Amino acid sequence: MPKALAQANDTVLLISEDGKKFYTKLISGHRQHTHQGIIDHDALIGQPLGRKLTSTTGHSFIVVEPSLAELMKAIKRKTQIIYPKEAGRIIFKLNIYPGRRVIEAGSGSGALTIALARFVSPAGRVYSYELRREMLVNAQNNVEKAGLSDFVEFKQRDIYDGFDETEVDAVFLDVREPWDYLAQVKAALKQSGFFGAIVPTTNQVSELLKALKAHDFGGMEIEENFLRSYKPVPNRLRPRDIMVGHTGYLIFARNVEPGAFPEPRSRRREPDNLGT
Amino acid sequence: MPKALAQANDTVLLISEDGKKFYTKLISGHRQHTHQGIIDHDALIGQPLGRKLTSTTGHSFIVVEPSLAELMKAIKRKTQIIYPKEAGRIIFKLNIYPGRRVIEAGSGSGALTIALARFVSPAGRVYSYELRREMLVNAQNNVEKAGLSDFVEFKQRDIYDGFDETEVDAVFLDVREPWDYLAQVKAALKQSGFFGAIVPTTNQVSELLKALKAHDFGGMEIEENFLRSYKPVPNRLRPRDIMVGHTGYLIFARNVEPGAFPEPRSRRREPDNLGT
Amino acid sequence: MPKALAQANDTVLLISEDGKKFYTKLISGHRQHTHQGIIDHDALIGQPLGRKLTSTTGHSFIVVEPSLAELMKAIKRKTQIIYPKEAGRIIFKLNIYPGRRVIEAGSGSGALTIALARFVSPAGRVYSYELRREMLVNAQNNVEKAGLSDFVEFKQRDIYDGFDETEVDAVFLDVREPWDYLAQVKAALKQSGFFGAIVPTTNQVSELLKALKAHDFGGMEIEENFLRSYKPVPNRLRPRDIMVGHTGYLIFARNVEPGAFPEPRSRRREPDNLGT
Amino acid sequence: MPKALAQANDTVLLISEDGKKFYTKLISGHRQHTHQGIIDHDALIGQPLGRKLTSTTGHSFIVVEPSLAELMKAIKRKTQIIYPKEAGRIIFKLNIYPGRRVIEAGSGSGALTIALARFVSPAGRVYSYELRREMLVNAQNNVEKAGLSDFVEFKQRDIYDGFDETEVDAVFLDVREPWDYLAQVKAALKQSGFFGAIVPTTNQVSELLKALKAHDFGGMEIEENFLRSYKPVPNRLRPRDIMVGHTGYLIFARNVEPGAFPEPRSRRREPDNLGT
Repeated sequence: MPKALAQANDTVLLISEDGKKFYTKLISGHRQHTHQGIIDHDALIGQPLGRKLTSTTGHSFIVVEPSLAELMKAIKRKTQIIYPKEAGRIIFKLNIYPGRRVIEAGSGSGALTIALARFVSPAGRVYSYELRREMLVNAQNNVEKAGLSDFVEFKQRDIYDGFDETEVDAVFLDVREPWDYLAQVKAALKQSGFFGAIVPTTNQVSELLKALKAHDFGGMEIEENFLRSYKPVPNRLRPRDIMVGHTGYLIFARNVEPGAFPEPRSRRREPDNLGT
Repeated sequence: MPKALAQANDTVLLISEDGKKFYTKLISGHRQHTHQGIIDHDALIGQPLGRKLTSTTGHSFIVVEPSLAELMKAIKRKTQIIYPKEAGRIIFKLNIYPGRRVIEAGSGSGALTIALARFVSPAGRVYSYELRREMLVNAQNNVEKAGLSDFVEFKQRDIYDGFDETEVDAVFLDVREPWDYLAQVKAALKQSGFFGAIVPTTNQVSELLKALKAHDFGGMEIEENFLRSYKPVPNRLRPRDIMVGHTGYLIFARNVEPGAFPEPRSRRREPDNLGT
Repeated sequence: MPKALAQANDTVLLISEDGKKFYTKLISGHRQHTHQGIIDHDALIGQPLGRKLTSTTGHSFIVVEPSLAELMKAIKRKTQIIYPKEAGRIIFKLNIYPGRRVIEAGSGSGALTIALARFVSPAGRVYSYELRREMLVNAQNNVEKAGLSDFVEFKQRDIYDGFDETEVDAVFLDVREPWDYLAQVKAALKQSGFFGAIVPTTNQVSELLKALKAHDFGGMEIEENFLRSYKPVPNRLRPRDIMVGHTGYLIFARNVEPGAFPEPRSRRREPDNLGT
Repeated sequence: MPKALAQANDTVLLISEDGKKFYTKLISGHRQHTHQGIIDHDALIGQPLGRKLTSTTGHSFIVVEPSLAELMKAIKRKTQIIYPKEAGRIIFKLNIYPGRRVIEAGSGSGALTIALARFVSPAGRVYSYELRREMLVNAQNNVEKAGLSDFVEFKQRDIYDGFDETEVDAVFLDVREPWDYLAQVKAALKQSGFFGAIVPTTNQVSELLKALKAHDFGGMEIEENFLRSYKPVPNRLRPRDIMVGHTGYLIFARNVEPGAFPEPRSRRREPDNLGT
């Protein structure tokens, strides 16, 4: 069976000898400039991935397909991005899958947009709202570079004015004051649909919880996710010295009939919510 | 726009007043027996979700669409399952998306199979290998109940005898001694393809790392994931008393040309691996 | 050199074959009743510790000196206790050592009282305030059983009415609304002295921070402590499945001249506060 | 009542406007040079602590008594130190208190030595062994600066040759291969006495566990400690972005009669070891 060959317009990751990662879209005739010389895209197109290659200055590079985690972290950032560790939880908790229709606001730098677009494709849609023109354009560029533009509709809009869509499967808010937009969310979200948000402070979590209750959402869940990375040395296995201590609090809720959801119980152990 | 109505063969989640969750496939004429009375499936089919309903004994239930996280945790278990928090990482790190072809071994109870099948659908395939007949049948039943059988090929096989597929995009091993099967993995995996595994002990991590190096895999990464859940009470916001302290170590690697990948550097801080 | 022998009035720990721990004060003539038979104290007094012995029903027990951590967890509880992992931090952050004078309120079950008393002895003092008679008596009994009564003065008092002491080295509050008592704390605490508190919710942390600032405290620090325990099996080394996810937030501050302490800086990394 | 005044030979902490900490021993006539001007020690001696003062260049400083945690982190380092968060655990698990006799090896930079000396004083002793002359001298200087020399005996020695002391209450090893010295530890440690060690890798934990069992130690416990620090801002309460991900694994054991200690049980939950 033939090996998978890199094609023009494919997104690839170049990794230099010193571990720097260059995320690029292969374009015939294009030359990639790096701190360790130039790589000619035509030397990559039509060739298998996973190979070593040499730059104009004699430095080694490896060219691989980027994982979604690598791709999200490689985008051009104009804001703090939603990291893959949180995006994985959002996908699973908001029940995102091929064919779903989902709203996000704001677009930010488009990291979550890329993850959402990947998993709703080919038949689903992401509706991505962003107020600030500069952010919107950057997010659009990032999504385009990832080859996912067909699955995303960007809209420059103050979401206080509401969403165009109705009966969407899920809504995710990454805005400073998510509690201000819950009526708009309710109008767009199908009954039994999934709501999610991320906020950095505990005060915001409390504020949002109050508003979710006031707007008759149910099944509220709040979580933090930690990722601990190890040095890959078999005879001296140990965690890395430093880890990310905080990215944000994730809040999830369901759009249900008022009063439908059982109240959170005060049992000491709730195995189902222990964090898995 | 019409509300989404539950259809026959849909998988739904019934939640009782006391928070118990019943995961069921709607079948005309079927009656669901619970500790709080009986629910008639015909009272659900054709009705909107997110509603409250009443059992034969007068107890309230709510019927909702299960999230993927809820669905994975609701399956019939014959083994320790891979939890959603790890499955989310696996999906992002192995670059699983609609259209991909992925091998997993063993099938276990099918929790990861369900997640993989959801995200490779509709055009991709999961090839799920399991040695033990009883496990295989249970996993098949769980995948069938989740409506995802079309996207999974189950095979009862000792994977020491190799995989049928070649040039797959990713391979994930959840077996006791993953280091024994790396030649077989290499034969099935495309160049630049993604390898992952989960093991519960540090000794296994060391053993697998050595074998991955010996088999010319590159870009090894090891991580642990923690999920910390909070009580959703706005004026007394606090984490739950108990959390899961360990599920397993995730190991990821890439199938690259021998020597292609840069060696892990000993820099104190490696921002790209800090756990996001 | 002679082995250390158990003396009458010594506090020892009996550990049964099935791992149950019995914390007891050796009293001549006393007989310890357990679920696995009776142990005669006279068989322990004058004998070395670290030995195996046999109960009336033929079950094995081991008798050892309890560590401070074991002793604190073995006391009779009428409240949630402050755990050794937090007590260790409190001792180090409040600069408790032999000869210091420290106030705590409330006494609770006396777990922290025992730790404070141990480390201020022989020349220092703990002033332990508690409003509820029943709690006070239980804490006193626990401290007495630990042989530390000489170093603690218990007082039944509503601390809203103030403390008797002045110029103490440190004050620790484990009360529901610590912000209500900061004027009283200031009156009792020496300049440059150490303040600490523990609260279970984020809302209380915010409230206390505001009040500390209003009362001209400086150098505020907030922290959480996690302890992750491993199964002691060398060839299958792994963390325990379940861990404690939350005990409380520790808040520390210093009693300084108004405006003396530098404002917290917004630098991304503050190595000195990274949690060591 | 008079305010506590700083005395000559007191150890104090100077904190600059920009949060830099200078740990110094007050000596009459000494002038402290900093990046923000000079502070005259004579301007501090005889004055109350907790005050603001001004350097020769007009910058503000605050002078406070250092906490034990601050003091340990302020010492001159020639090695990775044992951090206060681990030292607190060691003190509580090894049952260190006024009057105890404890061995540590190696001395390292003396951070743990300082904590041990503080808590065994005035009647107890720390016997601190170190092979490397340069380390020993640095540790001695650090302990002297902390005013704790009277409670520590330093010895330059390869501990493979054994310890001078017998019947000590506790032994702590911070060496690369602690398993090589367990016979020597047994010879020095009283029956029922406490053993502890810190190692950075999982491979070392496994090796030490095997050796402890072979040398008839009992009650083995392994733990990791995490400290998570928050930004002290009441209306935007949130953890710091970065935290320490790894310092070391702590191993504890007891010197008991062979076979005396119950085997670790395989119960899923062992509440007593959950990490408190």
